[in-house]
Amino acid sequence: MTKSNGSRRFSKRAIDIEPFRVVEILARAKELERQGREIIHLCAGEPDFSTAAPIREAGMRAISEGCTGYSEVGGIPKLRQALSEFYAEDYGIHVPPEKILITPGASGGILLICALLLNPREAMLVTDPGYPCNRHFMRLVEANAQLVPVTAQDNFQLTPELINQNWKENTVGAMVASPSNPTGTTLSRDDLKKISILLKKLGGHLIVDEIYHGLGFKKDIPSILEIDPNAFVVNSFSKYFGMTGWRLGWLVAPEDAVKEMEKLAQHLFISLSTPAQYAALACFEERTRIILDKRREIYRERKDFLLQALISLGFSVPCVPEGALYIYTNASKFTEDSDFFCMELLEGQGVAVTPGTDFGLIGAKQHVRFAYTADMDLLSSAVDRIAKMAC
Amino acid sequence: MTKSNGSRRFSKRAIDIEPFRVVEILARAKELERQGREIIHLCAGEPDFSTAAPIREAGMRAISEGCTGYSEVGGIPKLRQALSEFYAEDYGIHVPPEKILITPGASGGILLICALLLNPREAMLVTDPGYPCNRHFMRLVEANAQLVPVTAQDNFQLTPELINQNWKENTVGAMVASPSNPTGTTLSRDDLKKISILLKKLGGHLIVDEIYHGLGFKKDIPSILEIDPNAFVVNSFSKYFGMTGWRLGWLVAPEDAVKEMEKLAQHLFISLSTPAQYAALACFEERTRIILDKRREIYRERKDFLLQALISLGFSVPCVPEGALYIYTNASKFTEDSDFFCMELLEGQGVAVTPGTDFGLIGAKQHVRFAYTADMDLLSSAVDRIAKMAC
Repeated sequence: MTKSNGSRRFSKRAIDIEPFRVVEILARAKELERQGREIIHLCAGEPDFSTAAPIREAGMRAISEGCTGYSEVGGIPKLRQALSEFYAEDYGIHVPPEKILITPGASGGILLICALLLNPREAMLVTDPGYPCNRHFMRLVEANAQLVPVTAQDNFQLTPELINQNWKENTVGAMVASPSNPTGTTLSRDDLKKISILLKKLGGHLIVDEIYHGLGFKKDIPSILEIDPNAFVVNSFSKYFGMTGWRLGWLVAPEDAVKEMEKLAQHLFISLSTPAQYAALACFEERTRIILDKRREIYRERKDFLLQALISLGFSVPCVPEGALYIYTNASKFTEDSDFFCMELLEGQGVAVTPGTDFGLIGAKQHVRFAYTADMDLLSSAVDRIAKMAC
Repeated sequence: MTKSNGSRRFSKRAIDIEPFRVVEILARAKELERQGREIIHLCAGEPDFSTAAPIREAGMRAISEGCTGYSEVGGIPKLRQALSEFYAEDYGIHVPPEKILITPGASGGILLICALLLNPREAMLVTDPGYPCNRHFMRLVEANAQLVPVTAQDNFQLTPELINQNWKENTVGAMVASPSNPTGTTLSRDDLKKISILLKKLGGHLIVDEIYHGLGFKKDIPSILEIDPNAFVVNSFSKYFGMTGWRLGWLVAPEDAVKEMEKLAQHLFISLSTPAQYAALACFEERTRIILDKRREIYRERKDFLLQALISLGFSVPCVPEGALYIYTNASKFTEDSDFFCMELLEGQGVAVTPGTDFGLIGAKQHVRFAYTADMDLLSSAVDRIAKMAC
């Protein structure tokens, strides 16, 4: 640690960690809106719908009844039970509440998993491109994300071959995502099985990000828990359940790991949001599920529209997204500097999208992620505006 | 990392971090309640009042209006502004919104500060006894809390002499709390000035936990910001503002540090609870402040009652608490094992209190913390029950 002007500077960790560009773009977009500009948001992984009415009503009821105190740090028992039933009904598998931990967003779950599994200088395999925060959580605890370049040929996913090739002495596991951010690709039952078997052989942990489950456009998007009950799963109430601003997620892990992470959560979080948990109980009501499933079909329609439109404009889409909220495009026809391209598109045309540089290093400067988080009219208007830039 | 049964075990960090006993006792108490037992809660640092009505109403209004999406990661501008005005009105000081960061509980603030300021193997001075999570946050980022034994003679606080004596090559700062948990003691204006001057001389950071501000029983409990505008302050909407289950806090820091922590928060938290932030805006309304100030007077009455009652029973209270929600007692007349004592008191008499072992090592087995978080009838009944154990 170096001194300057008599006072100490910041940690090396803080210097190493890069900004999350999507959050910066979002902030800039909100600033422009406060100045009166009309911005079309295709940037953040946030459903443009408010939280569904039954969930909001349940939250308001809890607040009205004074459910505003600390909760059990692992989650209110009713919510852990509701998730256990959700796995039984939606996936046909038995996941006891003792294997489920409620977390402050999926972010809280990733923090706990990294704190639990990674010693300093140990590493976990992640895809490049992939969800950027993963590598920063690993950096936080002085461990490393080992970026594995993945290509359209592999559906932008880790394969057993890639895991084998990249496994080192200090590697302790692999993190995959299905459906993935930013590419929207999924891992099949067979893919998951092969990865799980290999990781067992290697003695490594398997962590699967399933936060875009429920927002899939093909029939069979299995949970790793159907295949490997010892895997770690990160999930969230933000995406399919549409509760972004409530900050609530969950994880599933082996029971002894849950117990250890609950201990860590006692110090790191003290408690979860109690109103959010009571609100989340309404996620599993039939009337809510009907709303949420309708919204997924709306996303499908938007994805189909935007995909065609972007391709027509000259963006190339190496893998058709099978889920999540994104289209990951190769924009090399228009730019060799996606940061600059995205900033120009925001400032000049009022369309907020995310540069590939958020998601890794490989081809990052040529890629742009579009989130279809605006309605068809806005999407159509966004396409017109993008066309002005992309000519 | 060692392997067992072909699968990897947990990190050394996870093994090192001890359970937060108060959270475990709280969980056990809730379990007993579900079994039909009537438990008196003098355990967690949680006001027994529900969140004040105007705050709850503001939260419900926000949810009803669909304010359920991601917020700016540093907090909605209105809330940062409201806090800036709060410092102007309550403390008579200018704290610009740019120096304020909203956090997911004070816990989120401590995480950001530790991530920002501590390299691996660097250390920060903390008091023993003191708030236990601080040292675990430091452990999380592979740094160390350097426990400094403090005694009643020093009001259980760090002094310039203690800081000087304990400062080492790898020490980068000191964390103090006023009013403090578990002892309820405060630092005077003069204490703070001396500590601030010394830390400047040493080139170290000063972090002050002010989460019990507003719950003080003496006239002048200054904020370090009145004395040293470059200090780091951790604060919370949980205690005086009574919003525990909403998970909202804030920190104040030099502007360049806030900018860095905002960057870290982008990855670690993505967003804060949006309903909680809109609810918190109502904290600063006059009608809310009247409710909250009344509650403080109720705490004062309880503190006075419980203090006398415990002393009559034979507990010794080395420092009369000047704030916070706790009485830190020496229970050596009754036990040399505070963990066992507290568990017996919970299981046998249905009174939940916290063993000194949560707060450090020095004298921990002889100390017990009582939180006056129950009304006078319950407190009186608790005293009767404790009397049965303490004879």
